[in-house]
Amino acid sequence: MVDSWVNSAEAIGADLHLELAGQGGRRAALTRALREAVRSGRLAPGTRLPPYRSLAADLGVARNTVADAYAELVAEGWLTARQGSGTRVAPRGTPLRRAERVPAAVSPRARGPRHDLRQGTPDVSAFPRTAWLASYRKALQQAPNEVFGPGDPAGRRELREALAEYLARARGVRAEPDRIVVCSGFAHALRLLFGQGAGGVLRGPLAVEAYGLGFHRELLSTAGVRTVPLPLDGQGARVDLLERGRAGGAGRGVRAVLLTPAHQFPTGGPLRASRRSAVVDWARTRGGVVLEDDYDGEFRYDRKPVGALQGLDPERVVYIGSVSKSLSPALRLGWMVLPGRYVDEVVAAKGDREGWVSVLDQLALADFLGCGAYDRHVRRTRQRYRARRDRLVAALAARVPYVEVTGIAAGLHAVLRLPSGTERSVVEAAARRGIALDGLSAFRHPGSEMPARDGLVVGYAAPSEHAYGAALDALCEVLEAEASPGGRGPEAPQDKGDPEAP
Amino acid sequence: MVDSWVNSAEAIGADLHLELAGQGGRRAALTRALREAVRSGRLAPGTRLPPYRSLAADLGVARNTVADAYAELVAEGWLTARQGSGTRVAPRGTPLRRAERVPAAVSPRARGPRHDLRQGTPDVSAFPRTAWLASYRKALQQAPNEVFGPGDPAGRRELREALAEYLARARGVRAEPDRIVVCSGFAHALRLLFGQGAGGVLRGPLAVEAYGLGFHRELLSTAGVRTVPLPLDGQGARVDLLERGRAGGAGRGVRAVLLTPAHQFPTGGPLRASRRSAVVDWARTRGGVVLEDDYDGEFRYDRKPVGALQGLDPERVVYIGSVSKSLSPALRLGWMVLPGRYVDEVVAAKGDREGWVSVLDQLALADFLGCGAYDRHVRRTRQRYRARRDRLVAALAARVPYVEVTGIAAGLHAVLRLPSGTERSVVEAAARRGIALDGLSAFRHPGSEMPARDGLVVGYAAPSEHAYGAALDALCEVLEAEASPGGRGPEAPQDKGDPEAP
Repeated sequence: MVDSWVNSAEAIGADLHLELAGQGGRRAALTRALREAVRSGRLAPGTRLPPYRSLAADLGVARNTVADAYAELVAEGWLTARQGSGTRVAPRGTPLRRAERVPAAVSPRARGPRHDLRQGTPDVSAFPRTAWLASYRKALQQAPNEVFGPGDPAGRRELREALAEYLARARGVRAEPDRIVVCSGFAHALRLLFGQGAGGVLRGPLAVEAYGLGFHRELLSTAGVRTVPLPLDGQGARVDLLERGRAGGAGRGVRAVLLTPAHQFPTGGPLRASRRSAVVDWARTRGGVVLEDDYDGEFRYDRKPVGALQGLDPERVVYIGSVSKSLSPALRLGWMVLPGRYVDEVVAAKGDREGWVSVLDQLALADFLGCGAYDRHVRRTRQRYRARRDRLVAALAARVPYVEVTGIAAGLHAVLRLPSGTERSVVEAAARRGIALDGLSAFRHPGSEMPARDGLVVGYAAPSEHAYGAALDALCEVLEAEASPGGRGPEAPQDKGDPEAP
Repeated sequence: MVDSWVNSAEAIGADLHLELAGQGGRRAALTRALREAVRSGRLAPGTRLPPYRSLAADLGVARNTVADAYAELVAEGWLTARQGSGTRVAPRGTPLRRAERVPAAVSPRARGPRHDLRQGTPDVSAFPRTAWLASYRKALQQAPNEVFGPGDPAGRRELREALAEYLARARGVRAEPDRIVVCSGFAHALRLLFGQGAGGVLRGPLAVEAYGLGFHRELLSTAGVRTVPLPLDGQGARVDLLERGRAGGAGRGVRAVLLTPAHQFPTGGPLRASRRSAVVDWARTRGGVVLEDDYDGEFRYDRKPVGALQGLDPERVVYIGSVSKSLSPALRLGWMVLPGRYVDEVVAAKGDREGWVSVLDQLALADFLGCGAYDRHVRRTRQRYRARRDRLVAALAARVPYVEVTGIAAGLHAVLRLPSGTERSVVEAAARRGIALDGLSAFRHPGSEMPARDGLVVGYAAPSEHAYGAALDALCEVLEAEASPGGRGPEAPQDKGDPEAP
């Protein structure tokens, strides 16, 4: 009985919203309603109308009534009928809005710069489509029915177990499934932690590194959270200033600090061991909490391991990661490993009935991690990015040896030091040549007391493999013209830089 | 060259985070680090270790060094080695946390009530797995590479175009792709519109229907938005009170109203035509805006069409829908059709770098809509739910004819009127018999001046097909015992109810 309706008139076809009203019979009313739907543009040219019998069943009229109405509108030119293609709304003589539309496949970024050396995106051509589809298929086929009902707001248990195992093994995180909360990515984690003003799990002010992502600072500022910049030196962020209650004079009352310990973003060094223990000690003695943004922890190219800071004290560190660098930012999938006391509040902030992340994607990632496909993909792309980094370093050494490259032991970007005062002209010259990249100053906290440094943040992951060489060429040309000791920069002499600065 | 590394030692295997330190040679340091990782529980029992050569390559040691360290730990009992299964962390004698874990497939809901008659969930066994997988596969295989990079914060163009066509055809929405913003569901739409206190696109106070979802009221309250209840009568919400600035005396300053015009939630009637034009007139003359929650607009069982209110004035109505009732709440996928003036602000509230919804899911839904699979699924499940509604009505008529059923022309739930004062005892008696359902009072706005009505909100979509009959039986038994004119309710005489009340 369950399936008997599949072949009935009401189960096939498509929905079409029509209100039959006014004078005359049903046929006249139907014709009028259809004509109005087409004339007003509600039904776009090319829209396929339902078969006679399904619309007739929906409206409770005879099949011939629908056939007659369709025929009348075909005769009037509103509809077209062709064998095998059904009845459709006729194309219009004058090109209207929908005909002018931008081809769907072209995003602003794809239409954008000739050479994309912006940080933040993995190589989009490397997405493991076949392996991901295999995991998605398995997840969808094996999912019990309850998967499609309301779920656990913390995220699927399967994913939290797979993440706990992976993060412990690969990143040294001390994770338990019950302390993991799945979210849409790092920014979502920040939103959940700091909430809406008074409603957050944590409260500002929040100490941050003097260089970081402006997008995060804005998000925090919108949430009413004041950020206090910590200077950077050769050891990493000056977390010692937290202990002394200084942090640029504004650090009083700071109970939370956001760090990128594995690979400072964007300047590139790790937080050294003494600073790691110092910040955990601070959190313990002052009742503080450390937010660890492990945004590209998988991509380390030397053999000196930099595990998660969280391993030092899972009760004092919130570990935050995502697939945005390792797989793609298009998946919108991240996670937090939380101190036990925050779990319930963060889950409540997510919203009892809002999971945010597709449960099928969560199950797919659980399978992808469990079957080793995630490790394989990370190890493959790590090699690819390492080779790109080597090409960048070699090209710069050969053509602009006076430009120092830093922050290259890990990650998907490097920082190029520029002579003082030249950053803006270099970025502008690059833009004129179709190279998109960011100057270092774009990442500087506006309240930082650190002297501003000139530099470029060069992302080497975004271009496709075949486009990378040309992007490097173009970059070297700009640097030759704008940043050479004899170049056109306002202060040509090379700036050796302070070894304690980023 | 690009693929040459695929077979190298570094590209296979898995990541394992180890810090080699301390005295003795590399082998001693490796053995120590591995033992500590197992002893501390960071590496869970059963975790598979990387092959010798991949770990050796990662650590920069000889392959034999790794082999010797593994062998030593196998001898000590920390690891196990078996042909074909590799080297793994040994199981422990005492059952630890991970051994006690709940079987992953069982969610709290699945372990929950024997009979699930709660509103809000579609039939989880009806999810169209095959058709959805086909669309997902097509989307993934045909996607241009740029899909995996940063995307349009409004949502993929392909999906917005498919939605515009579908919503115009099936729901009478006047939609253009440029006015559609993709989001995670209705609650996300509310969050985007009302933001964080001062930051929202819209401001409170917000007029709402006197009966509605408490979850939405709480979300608004957390965002600092005061809600003002509008009474309901036989015509739907008393939107006429907005015009007179009354709305229970608290409506002054109200410039936004949230309605469920197609099928009042949960009481079930449509907003009548005169009220529809009245609320749009109010919005035009007072500069107000109507939020239309079209949560189950696809599921209408009579032939009287109730199209979207938005069609009356796209510049005054925000139309909000999702796949949560039509496909599954597990997908976390919804949309808004916005007045032109709100589009930029809503996109900004989403966050420039946060899409919230997986781009692959967006492309899959675009295909699913475009190929007609969505229509087919909606029409099939509509028949299934109609049949269930008919069974509910027939069972109640046969066994408890004194219980009036209302709100049954549409949707996935019905409202049963109960004799005054019996609701609580009926809900409790149902719980004792393993039936989960909600009393009507759970949906009443606490500030409403409407007299409270006793009733049950019975969701008939959630049980699987084979479990539905038993759930109906159990429900009828409870009603026979607790709500009959001669039953045990505190006020046995049947309450005929006010015809103007919901």
